[in-house]
Parts: sequence; C-alpha cells; structure tokens
Amino acid sequence: MQGSNASVFDSILYSPLFTQAKMKQIWSDENLISTWLTFEVTIAKVQAELGLIPASAPGSIAQVCQLDNIDWPRLANDTRSVGMAIKPLVEQLAELGDEQVKKYLHWGCTTQDLLDTSLAMRIKQTLDVVRSQLLLLGDELQAMATRHQATVMVARTNAMDALPTTWGLHVCGYLQEVTRHLLRLEQLYPRAITGMYGGAVGNLSSIGEHGLEVRKRLFAALALTEPKGLGNASLDHIAELVQFFALIHGTLCRIANDTETMGRASIGELREGEQGGGSSTMPHKANPRAANMIQTLSRMGWMYASGAPNMLDQSDVRSASMRVLNWSLVPESALAVSTALERAHGLVANLVVNEHQMRANFAASRHFIMSEAVMMKAAQKVGRSEGYHAVQAAIANAPEQGDLATILKQNAQVLAILSDEDIDAACDPKHYLGCNQALIDETLQQYREVAGKV
Amino acid sequence: MQGSNASVFDSILYSPLFTQAKMKQIWSDENLISTWLTFEVTIAKVQAELGLIPASAPGSIAQVCQLDNIDWPRLANDTRSVGMAIKPLVEQLAELGDEQVKKYLHWGCTTQDLLDTSLAMRIKQTLDVVRSQLLLLGDELQAMATRHQATVMVARTNAMDALPTTWGLHVCGYLQEVTRHLLRLEQLYPRAITGMYGGAVGNLSSIGEHGLEVRKRLFAALALTEPKGLGNASLDHIAELVQFFALIHGTLCRIANDTETMGRASIGELREGEQGGGSSTMPHKANPRAANMIQTLSRMGWMYASGAPNMLDQSDVRSASMRVLNWSLVPESALAVSTALERAHGLVANLVVNEHQMRANFAASRHFIMSEAVMMKAAQKVGRSEGYHAVQAAIANAPEQGDLATILKQNAQVLAILSDEDIDAACDPKHYLGCNQALIDETLQQYREVAGKV
Amino acid sequence: MQGSNASVFDSILYSPLFTQAKMKQIWSDENLISTWLTFEVTIAKVQAELGLIPASAPGSIAQVCQLDNIDWPRLANDTRSVGMAIKPLVEQLAELGDEQVKKYLHWGCTTQDLLDTSLAMRIKQTLDVVRSQLLLLGDELQAMATRHQATVMVARTNAMDALPTTWGLHVCGYLQEVTRHLLRLEQLYPRAITGMYGGAVGNLSSIGEHGLEVRKRLFAALALTEPKGLGNASLDHIAELVQFFALIHGTLCRIANDTETMGRASIGELREGEQGGGSSTMPHKANPRAANMIQTLSRMGWMYASGAPNMLDQSDVRSASMRVLNWSLVPESALAVSTALERAHGLVANLVVNEHQMRANFAASRHFIMSEAVMMKAAQKVGRSEGYHAVQAAIANAPEQGDLATILKQNAQVLAILSDEDIDAACDPKHYLGCNQALIDETLQQYREVAGKV
Amino acid sequence: MQGSNASVFDSILYSPLFTQAKMKQIWSDENLISTWLTFEVTIAKVQAELGLIPASAPGSIAQVCQLDNIDWPRLANDTRSVGMAIKPLVEQLAELGDEQVKKYLHWGCTTQDLLDTSLAMRIKQTLDVVRSQLLLLGDELQAMATRHQATVMVARTNAMDALPTTWGLHVCGYLQEVTRHLLRLEQLYPRAITGMYGGAVGNLSSIGEHGLEVRKRLFAALALTEPKGLGNASLDHIAELVQFFALIHGTLCRIANDTETMGRASIGELREGEQGGGSSTMPHKANPRAANMIQTLSRMGWMYASGAPNMLDQSDVRSASMRVLNWSLVPESALAVSTALERAHGLVANLVVNEHQMRANFAASRHFIMSEAVMMKAAQKVGRSEGYHAVQAAIANAPEQGDLATILKQNAQVLAILSDEDIDAACDPKHYLGCNQALIDETLQQYREVAGKV
Repeated sequence: MQGSNASVFDSILYSPLFTQAKMKQIWSDENLISTWLTFEVTIAKVQAELGLIPASAPGSIAQVCQLDNIDWPRLANDTRSVGMAIKPLVEQLAELGDEQVKKYLHWGCTTQDLLDTSLAMRIKQTLDVVRSQLLLLGDELQAMATRHQATVMVARTNAMDALPTTWGLHVCGYLQEVTRHLLRLEQLYPRAITGMYGGAVGNLSSIGEHGLEVRKRLFAALALTEPKGLGNASLDHIAELVQFFALIHGTLCRIANDTETMGRASIGELREGEQGGGSSTMPHKANPRAANMIQTLSRMGWMYASGAPNMLDQSDVRSASMRVLNWSLVPESALAVSTALERAHGLVANLVVNEHQMRANFAASRHFIMSEAVMMKAAQKVGRSEGYHAVQAAIANAPEQGDLATILKQNAQVLAILSDEDIDAACDPKHYLGCNQALIDETLQQYREVAGKV
Repeated sequence: MQGSNASVFDSILYSPLFTQAKMKQIWSDENLISTWLTFEVTIAKVQAELGLIPASAPGSIAQVCQLDNIDWPRLANDTRSVGMAIKPLVEQLAELGDEQVKKYLHWGCTTQDLLDTSLAMRIKQTLDVVRSQLLLLGDELQAMATRHQATVMVARTNAMDALPTTWGLHVCGYLQEVTRHLLRLEQLYPRAITGMYGGAVGNLSSIGEHGLEVRKRLFAALALTEPKGLGNASLDHIAELVQFFALIHGTLCRIANDTETMGRASIGELREGEQGGGSSTMPHKANPRAANMIQTLSRMGWMYASGAPNMLDQSDVRSASMRVLNWSLVPESALAVSTALERAHGLVANLVVNEHQMRANFAASRHFIMSEAVMMKAAQKVGRSEGYHAVQAAIANAPEQGDLATILKQNAQVLAILSDEDIDAACDPKHYLGCNQALIDETLQQYREVAGKV
Repeated sequence: MQGSNASVFDSILYSPLFTQAKMKQIWSDENLISTWLTFEVTIAKVQAELGLIPASAPGSIAQVCQLDNIDWPRLANDTRSVGMAIKPLVEQLAELGDEQVKKYLHWGCTTQDLLDTSLAMRIKQTLDVVRSQLLLLGDELQAMATRHQATVMVARTNAMDALPTTWGLHVCGYLQEVTRHLLRLEQLYPRAITGMYGGAVGNLSSIGEHGLEVRKRLFAALALTEPKGLGNASLDHIAELVQFFALIHGTLCRIANDTETMGRASIGELREGEQGGGSSTMPHKANPRAANMIQTLSRMGWMYASGAPNMLDQSDVRSASMRVLNWSLVPESALAVSTALERAHGLVANLVVNEHQMRANFAASRHFIMSEAVMMKAAQKVGRSEGYHAVQAAIANAPEQGDLATILKQNAQVLAILSDEDIDAACDPKHYLGCNQALIDETLQQYREVAGKV
Repeated sequence: MQGSNASVFDSILYSPLFTQAKMKQIWSDENLISTWLTFEVTIAKVQAELGLIPASAPGSIAQVCQLDNIDWPRLANDTRSVGMAIKPLVEQLAELGDEQVKKYLHWGCTTQDLLDTSLAMRIKQTLDVVRSQLLLLGDELQAMATRHQATVMVARTNAMDALPTTWGLHVCGYLQEVTRHLLRLEQLYPRAITGMYGGAVGNLSSIGEHGLEVRKRLFAALALTEPKGLGNASLDHIAELVQFFALIHGTLCRIANDTETMGRASIGELREGEQGGGSSTMPHKANPRAANMIQTLSRMGWMYASGAPNMLDQSDVRSASMRVLNWSLVPESALAVSTALERAHGLVANLVVNEHQMRANFAASRHFIMSEAVMMKAAQKVGRSEGYHAVQAAIANAPEQGDLATILKQNAQVLAILSDEDIDAACDPKHYLGCNQALIDETLQQYREVAGKV
C-alpha cells in the first residue's frame, strides 16, 4: 500500500516534517497493541497473586501476548467488521495459547478499561518525552541567555523601536515560560496518567468483591495513577493535557515569530543556522524553515485544544461519540507538540546571533530610543522638570536628519546642562539597561530550581 | 512498516472508521504525485502548442510522468533532506527520460504553482464526491419524508413534549439543510477549484510575455478556474471550503442526535438497522454506532473549521507557515465529512422507524400535548375566551392520574361545550397537524429543483 | 443611553441570564478603575517607605484616588481620543489634588504595568468567587450522593440501557470532577495572580536601582504574586485560566445533559425544581431552563478557550494586538463560568429525583439488563460455562414479550439450575451494584480532603 | 449604573475601540425591541388584509407599538422573572391600548417566530452595512493600486526578500479578496435574511388554514426571505454568516500584518497616517494602532466562527440551548467585523507609502534579488545554459561586501557576455516585473464588475 496514506503524520512525503521519531512510535498501532498486551499480562499476574486464576496462567498468557504473534491483516479485517479491536485481538491470541490462555486471557476485563488504561500508558510515555524536550530546550535557552547577557539590542513594543535591552534578557522571557511549563507538567502528570478499571458501567459489578484489591495492585504494577470512584464519563484530564500542549506551542511560536521577524533582510539580527546554505542564485536567502514549521505546528496544536472540550460533552455513564475523539486528538496533538519542541531545540541550538547588526539597528530610529536615558541624565543634573524640558525641546525642534547625539550637541540649552561626554554616555545603550543582570539571574535561578538542577 | 501509522486516518485498526474509500484515495500520497504529474504533462503540452518548447517534448515527458516510475524510498529520503518533494521528483523523473525530458520537464515551473494547482485538482475531485453523497442522502431523506408524511409523533422542543407533528415533516427539516448545502456547493465550487500559476512572487516574471496565454490554456486544459491577479497569499477559498464541510456536519449531527435520543429504550421510536443484531446476553441492546461515529466526526469537522481561519493570517507575497496548514486541514476535513456522509446515508437508508411507539409515546405526557387542539375546538364552538377558559380550568384542576380525554370527559364545564366525540376527535393528533402536507410538499419541490431533478 | 447596550452581558433584557452579580461587579468599568486607583495609592506608599517620594504624598494621593472623584463623561471622551484610559485618568485626578499629588501621583509608573497588575487583581477576586462556587456545588453534590447512595437506576452507555447502578454513584462522577477542579485552581492560582512591574520594556530602566525593592514591596502590599524576570510578552497564565474555566464548564454541561435527557417525558427520572410551575395549558411541561442555559454557557466557555491561545502569538517585548484580546476574553469567560456555576448550584440544590420512575425504567428493556447478574448467579451454582450457556440460550430464544424473570421462569433448562426465588433475587438490581458503596465513600473522602473539610 | 458594564462592546472606556456606531445601534436592546414592534404591526396588517382580524385593529396596534411607550425598568424586571422578553413586552403594550389592541396584538404569534424574524431583520441591516463598508474599502484599494502600479518594492516570501514587485500589484492581492467577499455576500444574503413563521413546532397548527398565505404576505411586507418547510432547528445560515465574517477578517488582518511589518523602523516602507503625531520624547515612534486593533478583532472574529457550528448541534424540533448562542455570537461577530472594516478603511485611506524607502530596501539583500533577472538577460545573449552558468559562478564566488551590479562588473566571465549597461538595466527592478500591469488591470476589472460599477 505504498503511497496510500493520507494524513501528514503518516504520509511518506510529509511525515518527517510532522512527527518526532519517539512520539511517532508511542502513538503507532504497534504501541497501541503493545500496551493492550501489557495490560492483559499484568492483570493476569495480579489475579494469580490473589488466587483468582491459577498461578501458572500468567506465564502462559505472557507467552502468547507478544507483538510478533499478531496477524495484522486478520486483525484489521476483524476490527472492521466488529467495530472494536479488543475482542478480535483476544480471540486470535487465545487460539495460539494453551487451555489456560483460552480460559483466563482477558478474564473479567472490559474493552473500555483496556482502551483507557492504554491511553494512560501512552500519555505517560508522551509526558516523559515532552519533559525531556522541555529540559533540552531550557538548557539551550539558559546557555544563550548567559552568553548574551550583555548583548545590547533594540527593545521593540507593538513592532516599534522603544528602548534598549539585551538579547540575553529577551531570551529569559522564553525561559520563564519553559519553567512554568515544567511546573505545569509536574502538576498535571498524576491526573493525566490515571488508568481505568471498573467494568461495563464502572462499579466493578462483574468483578465482585476483589474488585478494589485488583484495581489497586493493577495500577501499582503498571505504575499509573489508580482511578477512584466513577470516572467513565470524565475526560477532563485528557482535555487538560491537550490544552497544556497548546501553552507549550505558545512559547515555541514566540521564538519562531521573533526569529522570523528579526531575520528579515532589513533587520538581520538573527538567522537560522541549521541549513548548510541557501540557493546558489540568491546567496542572501535562507528561508526560516524551522520557524515556519513551528508556526504551522502551533496552529495545529491550538486547533486541537479548541476541539478538546468537546470530549467533556458527556451523558450517562459515558458517551462513546465524545470519547472516540481522543483517538485522533491525543496522538495528533502529541505529535505536533513534540515535533515543534524538536524543531525549536534545533533552531535555538544553531541560531546565528548577529550582535553587530543588533547594535547597528539603533540607527533605524536615529538613536532617538535613547532620549529617555538622556532626560534622566539631565534630570539628575538640574532637577526633573528643567532637565526633561530642555531635552524635550531639543528633540521637538530636531531637524529631519541626524542622530540624537548629534542633534543634542548642537543645542545650546542642552549643552548648558550636559557635556558632549555626558551626551555620549547617556546615548550608550549599555548604560541604560535597568536591572538587566538581576532579572536574568533570577530567571536562571527559577529555571534551575524547577528543572531540579540546584 | 506494519503497524507504524499513528493517525486514525491511516491506522490499520482505525482507518476504516474514519475514511471513505474514494476520499482516502483522493488525498493519498499517490494521488498527490499523480496530480503533479498531470500538471507537468499538461503544461508541456500547452508550451508546445505555443511553440515555447519543441513539439515532440510533451510526448517524451508524458512517457516518464507515470506513477509506476516513482522510486518511493528515494523520493521520501530526498524530500526529507530538501524539505519539499517537487524538486526530488522532477530530478528522478528527468533521469529516466531522453534529452528533451531532461531539458523541458518542469520548464518555467515553480513549486508553489504545482502545490496549489494540485490542491485545486484534488478539491475538485473531493467536491464531486461530496456532491454525489449529498444527493444520495437527499434522495433517501426524500423517500422517507414521503413514506412518513402522515406518521404522527410527538414534537418536542427543548427536550419537552410539546405538540403533535409527523416524522415526515421532521425529516423535511433535514432535507432542507441538504438542499441548502447543494446550493452552497454550487456557489463556492468555482472559487474552490481555482489553480495557481504566477511564478515565485506571482507576477509571472520568470515566464515572460507569454505568461497570461500559458495560464489561460493551462487551466482550460485542467478544467480548473483560471487564477486572476495576485492570489499567492490568499487562502480564503480554502478556509471557506473547510467551513462549508462544518455546515454539512451540522445536518448529519442533527440526524445522529435524533437517532440516538429517539432510540433510547424508554422512547424507542427509532433504531439503527445496519447491524445484524445485538449481543446474545442483551437482546435489547444495539449501540447507535453510526450515530455515534457521525457525532464524533462532526466535532472533528467543526474543529478543522475552527483552525481554518489561521490560513488567512498571511504576510508579504505569502507566508509558508500558514499555507502549510492546508496540508493537514484539507485532507482531514475532507475525509471526516465524506465518512460522515457515508455513515449518515447508511443510517437513514436502514433506519427502523417504530410508528407504533411514536403513537404510544403521546401517553408519556398523558396526551396533554393535545390541550391546545381541544381549546381551539372549544373556541370554535363558543368563542375564544369562553372556550379557552373552560378547558384551561379543567386542566388546571386535573387529578394526578388519567389522560387528557378522560379528564375532560369528567368535567361538566367542558362537557357543556364539547361532546365525548368532539373531545376524542380533538385529542386525535392527526387532526392537529397544521399545514403538514403543504410544508412537506414545498420542501420536496425545493430539493428537486436544486438537485436538478425537475 | 437606555437600551443602547449590545452584548448579552450588559443588555437590559439579557444580562440577568448571562451574568452572576459578584462577577459582573468584578469586571465592571468601576472595578477596573478601582484597581487602578489601588495601584496608584499602593505604589505611592511603597515609594514613600523607601524615601523615593515625600512621606506625606501617599496620604494626599489616597485622598484624590476615590471612585467618586471620577468625571465619567470626560474620562470616556479622553480615552476615545488618546486610545488608552490611564493617562486621562491620572490627569483628571491630578487636577483635584495638591502639589504633591500633581508631582508624585503615577510617579515612575507605566501604563502596561497598571493594566496587567489590575488584571491580576481582578483575576484574584474572580478565582476567589469561583472557588466558593465550586465548594457550594461540591457540597450539594456530596449531600445528593449520600442521600441517593442506594437509589437504584438504569446505567446507560452510548444512550443504551446497560446495567444497574445508583444515582448516588452517578453523582459521584460529577463530584470527582469538581474535586479535580479545586485542585487545579489551587495549582494555577499563584501563576494567575501574577502582577507586572517593569516599565516600558520590562527591565525597570526608568525606575533605577530601587526597582527590585519597589517591586517586592508593591506585590507584598497588593497580596499578588511578584513577577520575576521578563514577562511582558507572556500570557500563558491567562490562557491557562480561560482553559481552566472550559474544564469546569465540562462538568456543569454533563450535569445539564443528564438533567435534560433524564427529564424527557418518556424517561421522567429527573426534573428541575426551581420554577414554580409550568404553563397552564400544558401541566406536563416545564422546560429545563437551568440545564439549557448551562449548555449554552458551556459552548461560550469552550469558545473562549479556543480563542485563548491567540494571546500567545507574541513578538518582541510584547504585541499589543494579542494582549488586548484579554480585555474581552477574560471578562466574558469569567462571567460565563460563574453564571453557569450559579445555575448548576441552583439546579442541583432543587433537583427533583423521581426514585420511583428510576426503578420503573428497568421495564423499558424488559429487565434484560439484569441478564449478566443472572448468569453470574447460575455460574456460581453449576460453573461458569454451563451456567452462562443455559441463561444465554433462554434469552436467545425469548419470545417478543415478557420480562426477563418471567421468561427465565418458563425455561426448563434454567429452572434446573435456579429456583424462582434465585431468579427474582438475581433480577433485583440492588444485588448487583458491585463496589457501589466503596466507590461512593472514596469519592466523598477525596472531595473532603481537597476542599479542606477533613 | 454609570460604569457597571463589563463587556468591551458596552464598556464606557472600551466600546469606542470595539464598536462601529451603526452596528452598535443595530444590535442594541432598542433595535431588538424595535424589530419586535415592527413584526407585531406588520402581522396585524396582514391579518387584517385577510380578514382574520378587524380592519381597524392594525391602526390601534401601530399606535401603541412605539419605542417611546416602553417602560424599560418594568420590562427588564419582568424578563428576569419570566425568562423571555416577548410576553412581558406584549402585556405592557396591551395595557396602553384599546380593546382591539388588547385582543389582537400578538394574535396567533409565537415567541420563537418573533425572535428569529427579528434576527433576520437585524442581519439584513447588518449585511447592508457590511456591504457598504466592503465597497468603501474596495474603492480605496482600487485607488491605491492604480496610484502605485509602478511603485517598485521588494517582494518577500516566507519573510525573505525574493524578487521585485510593485506595491500596486500587492494591493491588488487585497482587492481580489474583497471582490470575492462581495460575491459571497450576494450569495448568502437571501439565506441569511430568512425569517421564521411556523408556531410552536413549526407546522402552523395554531394558525390554521390561512397559515401559508399569512406567511407569504408577512415576509413580502418585511422584505425578508420567506421560510419554507420546517426550519426551527436549522441555524446553518446563521453559522454561515459568522463564518463569512471570519473570511473578511482574514483580508483585513493581512493588510494589518503588512502595515505592521513594513512599518518597522528598519524597513520603513509604510506608516499609519491617521494619528496627529507620536510622543514628544520619541519622535520616531507611532504605534500602528489601527493595524493592531484589526489584528485583535480578527482573532475575535475567528473565535466566533469557531463557536458557530455549536449552533448546529440540534435535537428534536429545536434545542433552546444551542439557539440561544446566537444572542451573543451574532451581535459580537457583527460588531467585530464592522469595527475592523472601519479601522481598515481608515488605515488604507490614510496610509503613508514611502516609495523612496521601498526602493532603498533593495540594498538589504545587496540587490541579489535581481540575480534571476541578470541570468535571464545573459541567457538571451548566449543561451540559457552558458548564461546562467556565468552569472551563477560570479555570485557563488562573490565577496562578502558589495552589491550585485558591482560584483558582476568586476567579473570577467560575466563581462564577456554583458556590458555594464546591460548589467545596470538587468538590475533595475522596473524591467523585471513580469505581467504586472496586466494582472493589476484584470483585478480592477473584476472588482468593478462585482461591485456593480461597470
């Protein structure tokens, strides 16, 4: 079936752009079945421990519950006609086993319990990957913030040049969001990896008196959060997960936006460094491919988050329709966020920062963004009112050409307050960075604490 | 790569539930490449016609532009490293051809033009399928409305029993939406199948003076709408398409909602008829599988529509990031809508309508939903004010038990106005259906006109 | 301007349906300005403490910073022409004050810092209200779960009657979500109430060396989380808040869905009890108004959550465009969630549970939902295989009429295993509720822990 | 209630930023009631024409159905307790009238019919405003495209400088979208202004035999589309309207994005011209306020579109919950789109285009974006292969400094093919604009046709 796939996640041509390798494996059919097999083997062990099934059954069950035993075409076919994959799977495995397998495989199990516990297992694998990726990205950002703590650049608000800042502090703005994402991940983790075990309507009626003990041991063995009470209609923890991924995309998209904008030819402060080189006819041109892909993936991630609350539109013990949404929402959103994290890490790790151009771009506004600094200087000398007034007047009457220092040095009123040296010093962005260093330091400190690196 | 797919559209286990066969083929990698090959062959013909390339070139080009010639693993690999599939494709095909192919294959073509024209070709195929599906569904609804034009049932508003109606008229409510969808499809069709031909920045600068003539002949040959002016950043027609699919989902979801609700055990008016039968232990139980799947797909379709406007967040001649969104939005939304249409058609075609139960359910409200009819009858006899008053008083003082007719027949004030026969007649839903027949007739008439069946 | 409002939140006719009184006050223009005044007074106090402004200034400033002093028409007008409200406000207040006010009001303050800190103050008020509302709802659910821990009803999955359960356990399903919401609120609270203080580009450059000390004291005085590092472009904590509200809506919507469905005439298990009574002509009819309104509000809440990630599409130090989104997203989403919580509390507190009808509805499936229980009983007597077989055969060959017990009592094969008394006992839902009580108990326990009631 | 409003649409401070004056009036409480009054007066006239009510009744009814007669506080209060505004309104008006009014006002009318027909009336007013606004914007774009048909600028793709184009052609890209929006508006107009008249469950049962004739005359008199069949649960035409507004936002947002980006200090090609001037201390700074507000409003508009399909999640004859969504979705989305259109018109009408800077910005890429033009020139002289080769080699070995022409003029291999004059000519962007003029012409032609100006 070469070339028959239709989604960007599985297309031969496009999947490399939309999937991260580990995450693709986690959400593959193979791993789906693998988690089901793990469930069957584990519950058999627990049941044997409690004497509910013979002590030798788990061994036999484990022997047949192997991925290599799956007859894929038959499974696909049976699933098509039955509408669910669990029964066909159990049947074909039972055929391969001895009497104990035929009798005790899937003993007292319900399709819904397998589906939801498998989901929890794969979410656990997913969050472990995402956590690693956040840390990799955080470490790169930390290094870049440190390296560029004194790299002066134009701070822009609403796309307008405003005041001086440093690239290091700007990068801290990203890092702080990463820090919060790590904290959020830690907080939602136990909820997100909650399994399911309750039988057809959640009250363990078909399992009987040992129900709660089986439940307890099962989730201890699977290293998942044990479900309590009745959760069959509840998918708030799944919606929360997809929403969380959307927040991560926000940070990555900001990095991408800045890379794209600051990489425009006329600005030239940043450049993606991953590609070997641009076209032979346009040496100036190197598309911000990582940035663009991250922007694309962010919209996908935000879209998934917009669909997530539909899973909460439940009725009765559960509504199949709204539960089935997780089959597409969770894999696609997990793939989108991990791919974006991978691209963002590569982007940051290879980013080419043009410090020279950052400094040169103060000229775009004729260095007028230093005017506040000059006023403060003048205010120090002759008091706020008089100082401000003099500089303001000089600027208001400034000619159409010339940079701030030049204009001020030609203004008698200003020169009565500030010397040429004063003016030059005040116009030097390095001297007007406020609490730059302290703000960087506290950011790095917070990251290290949350990342467990202190 | 058995079992390596991750999306529900390509998963071995789940794709049958989420894809319609023709639509899966339309959005497959194979058809993607197939449309690119068609583009290359067609433009060569046009260029030869205009004498821009040798007359014999198109024949040689057509010979190599065959799907069978594709070396898939190499193409996948090259796409991964280049980031786009067009160049690697052209290169491997050029190797297979003679000198004319090497020289004139892809002559004066741009990646973007191929991508967008291929999109238009596949959208055309998609809309042709969707139109057929809407007609198939419309025809079934028309037949059902006709069959049940006198099948009396309880009309409910806000989930409360309200007044009598017919199942035939209710079905007309669905059909009218289908009629509007057909009209919308016709209106957006020419926009949705607009191709692209403009070179790197859309002004045909690399193509030269023959640009407009090539464009005109190319799209005539491809039977697509010729693009005018500069459209490289415009994806409003693509967003509009995905939005349109969301509207179709609305109708299908309504049908599914009603099927699910009216199929609840205590209501029992409808039942899906596609399955052979239920479980052996629960003969009463047959999950509304088609309805549930249609509900699931509707949320997916609405989610895609919520993501679609992001494609409009463009800058400059075009933003790659927001364009690339169409690679996942269009295929997934097309698959979701065609799968839902297929399920809805099957649901309606096989729907089991329990007319007996529809009539029996008037008892759930003790036939009080006929009270308005009785009042009207009384009003005809003794005037509105007195008639209303008498019936209202009887109902207000009604005992906790007994149906409307019984209660009224025991009320002296009412009996002074209406005979027992009058009461029975007024309580017969058949006599209080308003313009039922005329409303059904005008609906069927409108459908036939728009469907081109008059 | 009687009747000039256009939004449902402020419309004379509709606002009572879409707003909760306290929340409306929190997000009013009045409270917006009130928080700005609090900021100005507080920062003056802090600056005086540190000797940055005269010790007597805060007193004078506090005197003019009163809501009663606002000239609303002038403020509205000036805001219209300036585009921001802070400067016009400061100017009109300064005019009212003495020399110290004119000089030190708004000393070293930035519009952005006021806007964002005011947002944090109002979010704090909001979350305090939401927490109280969650507890009020949780307490009602707890009481209902306790009251109905043995109220047997039909458990339904995918809208189909499935097995017996209790209304008490079902209510626990709601309560558990409320418990998780309380936990989430606690976790996001410190992030959500983070203020802002950094000057035009966030590095405190205009404030100077005392910047960090002012910041620290300011947020201690305001009882908000002190902002660290550079957060001007970060709105992840605001998006997270709106997403959180969407999760709460999920729970309320589930309650509403169940109320609506279980209140349908043919089911009749629940009825909203808030209204005095229905229409005089349709005594059976009482629209589920609270349920419907909660469903409406949930879609609004989910829509706001779908828009929230756009706030993260930031550039540079900050993008005004995407920040301004919070002006409509946060108030509207806060109003929607608190109104829905209020309606849900009223709905639950007044809900009329028809235990009789719950029990009677086992008849809708002819009590076949008890078949699993009978099989288990038979399996206990003669072993699983034989027991299942006998019951299954009896059911498979059951006539079109008659309930489960009647059918079984006429089947010789079954009677060979089970007595009439056995059959009656097995068909009694009370005996087949699994771990009902333990599941209810653990749910209540978890709620009390998180609610701080243990 | 000074300062008690909470939404940006009604806030004293913010409503001027979020509302267009005419549209605010259309969606005000006043106009809502005004359309209800129009409905009452009109249906009375129709009923009198058909002899269903006395000929003199309409006159009396028209006399009391005046906005000035409304007792607002009482109406607000009654609406709060009843839950719907129609009955309280009719009651207070009936009190003011004579016997005929008391008897025939609201004769045979249903709340739902009034609500939906009023919606259609206000949508008609809305679309008339939106159409005017689209034409105003289109005319400005047309003028700008004409004025700048030869204004050369750098064409950028994926934020990278690519090739030359003209500002006039770029503006045509906007205009073409406006043209399509006008076409869409025309197509959806009849659907969007469809009224409602069917009684409680849509079959006109309470109206009787004259039902269809009353319906026909009513909508002819109201100049709305007459509803056919059963449409009570159908809101696809309303969802379609909100979706359409989202497409318009796409165009406005593109204009805003380009204005913002091209207005960055280092690019400096565009500047908003509406403000009198910037700050006194930062003469260079003028925030792109209109652009930013348009971006904000676009996200709001896209969010409303994402919520719109929920209105389609209907059941039975109708679901109140999902219908009520239109009370907030339609007014807010109409306000957002008309405000954005107004801002966009102001932005375009006052836009300052810096032609000099557009030309100067070719230097940012050292004019290398002209390399394709030079190659074409060389190819004309010595054949494609040799020509390309020579230029490509020269560029590949180009030094780090110097613009394209300078580099080529120092390259012997190139000079063997092209003279200095050839090189200068090829590097002049004016000579490499492809079909610029023809593309502009066909765009303007299409606009004029659709706008009805031919």
